[in-house]
Amino acid sequence: MTTLYGYFRSSAAYRVRIALNLKGLDYAQVPVNLVKGEQRFDANLARNPQGLVPVLETDEGVRLAQSLAICEYLDERHPEPALLPADAEGRARVRSLAQLVACEIHPLNNLKVLKYLVHELKLDDDAKLAWYRHWIAEGFTALEARLAGEAATGVFCHGDTPTLADLCLVPQVFNAERFECDLAPYSTIRRITERCRSLKAFAEAAPGEQPDAG
Amino acid sequence: MTTLYGYFRSSAAYRVRIALNLKGLDYAQVPVNLVKGEQRFDANLARNPQGLVPVLETDEGVRLAQSLAICEYLDERHPEPALLPADAEGRARVRSLAQLVACEIHPLNNLKVLKYLVHELKLDDDAKLAWYRHWIAEGFTALEARLAGEAATGVFCHGDTPTLADLCLVPQVFNAERFECDLAPYSTIRRITERCRSLKAFAEAAPGEQPDAG
Repeated sequence: MTTLYGYFRSSAAYRVRIALNLKGLDYAQVPVNLVKGEQRFDANLARNPQGLVPVLETDEGVRLAQSLAICEYLDERHPEPALLPADAEGRARVRSLAQLVACEIHPLNNLKVLKYLVHELKLDDDAKLAWYRHWIAEGFTALEARLAGEAATGVFCHGDTPTLADLCLVPQVFNAERFECDLAPYSTIRRITERCRSLKAFAEAAPGEQPDAG
Repeated sequence: MTTLYGYFRSSAAYRVRIALNLKGLDYAQVPVNLVKGEQRFDANLARNPQGLVPVLETDEGVRLAQSLAICEYLDERHPEPALLPADAEGRARVRSLAQLVACEIHPLNNLKVLKYLVHELKLDDDAKLAWYRHWIAEGFTALEARLAGEAATGVFCHGDTPTLADLCLVPQVFNAERFECDLAPYSTIRRITERCRSLKAFAEAAPGEQPDAG
C-alpha cells in the first residue's frame, strides 16, 4: 500500500495528496503532527533525515522526500492524467510556475521559519504577519503577472488540464487565506484556484478533509 | 545565440552556468546587477515579471525562468551528458537532493531576504549572520545525513557523474563559505564539492570567473 506521511495543513503534503488523487491512486495516510514537533521524532527522522513531511512510501518500498520530486515520480510511474505538458517548453513553463511558489514563496512562510521569527527574533504577531504577507504579495504579484500575461495560461495555470503548477498554487492560496492576506489584486490566481477547487481531486485533498484535521 | 541573464554571485545563475558548461553549450552572458537593483529595472521585468535572475533565452527565442526548470529543459533538449539518472527512483532522489538545497536552504538566505532582515526587521550584522548560519547548518546537517547514509551516493551526490543535485550543492557551498559557515561537520558535502570543483565545467562557472565579477 502506498503510504503518505504528512500533516493536514502542510502545503507540501497537500500538493502530493492532489497528485495522488488526480492519478486515482489509493494511499494510506500517517499523520505527523508538526505543531507537536513529531517530524523531529526518531520514527520520522529514520524516514527522512531532514525531519520534514511529506514522505511517500510506495508499495514497492521506495521512500521519497520533497513534494515536487514525489509528484514528478508519480507522474513518471503513472503517466495518466499527465501533470506536465508533452512539449519541453511547456514542461519548463509549468515547472517554473511551480517553483515560483515552491522555491520563492512557501519556503519563507512555513512553520519552522515562523517559529524562528517568534522564538529567536522575538517578533510580535504584527511583525510576523507583515513578514508572511510581504512574501505572499511579492510572489503572487509576479505569479499573477505571468498567468495573466502569458498566452499558455488556460482554464488552469497551463492549458485546460491541471498540472504541477496548480498543485502548488492551490495549497499556497489556502495558506494565504489562513493568514488573511488580501487576494483581491490577483484575479487570475483566484479564478484558477476556484476552478481547481471544483474538482474532486483537489477538494478531497483539502486540509479540512484529512483524518488529522483538528 | 543562447543568452543567460544572470549575476556572478547568484546561486541560481551559477547552477545554470554549470549546466550549460557540462552540456558544452555556447552562451552569451548579460549581467543584471542585483546589488544595484537592476533586476527591478523595466528591461529585466519585461524578461521576467518576478524580477529575478537567471533568465535563459534560447537561440529559438524561448525565454525561461527558474534555475531548476531551466536545467531540466537543457537536459531534455541536450540529453548528453545526462543531469538526471535513467531510472525513476534515481531521478526522484536527485531531484529531492536538489530541492533540499533549492527549496529549503537557498530561499531563506538570498539577497532579498537578507535585505528584509536588515531594512524591515532592523537586524544587526550578528543576528543576520546567525540567521544565515542557522539555515545552512539545518540544511547541511540533513543533506550530509542523506549523502553519507544512502547507498546511491558515489563520487558525486548520485553515482559517479554530476547531476542536478551537484549543480545545486556547489553554489550553496560557495555561499556558505562566503558567510564563513563552519563546514567541518559535513565531510561528504566537502568531498563531493571538491571533486566537482576539479571539473572544468564547474570551475569555469564559479562566480570569480564571470565577466561581471567585482
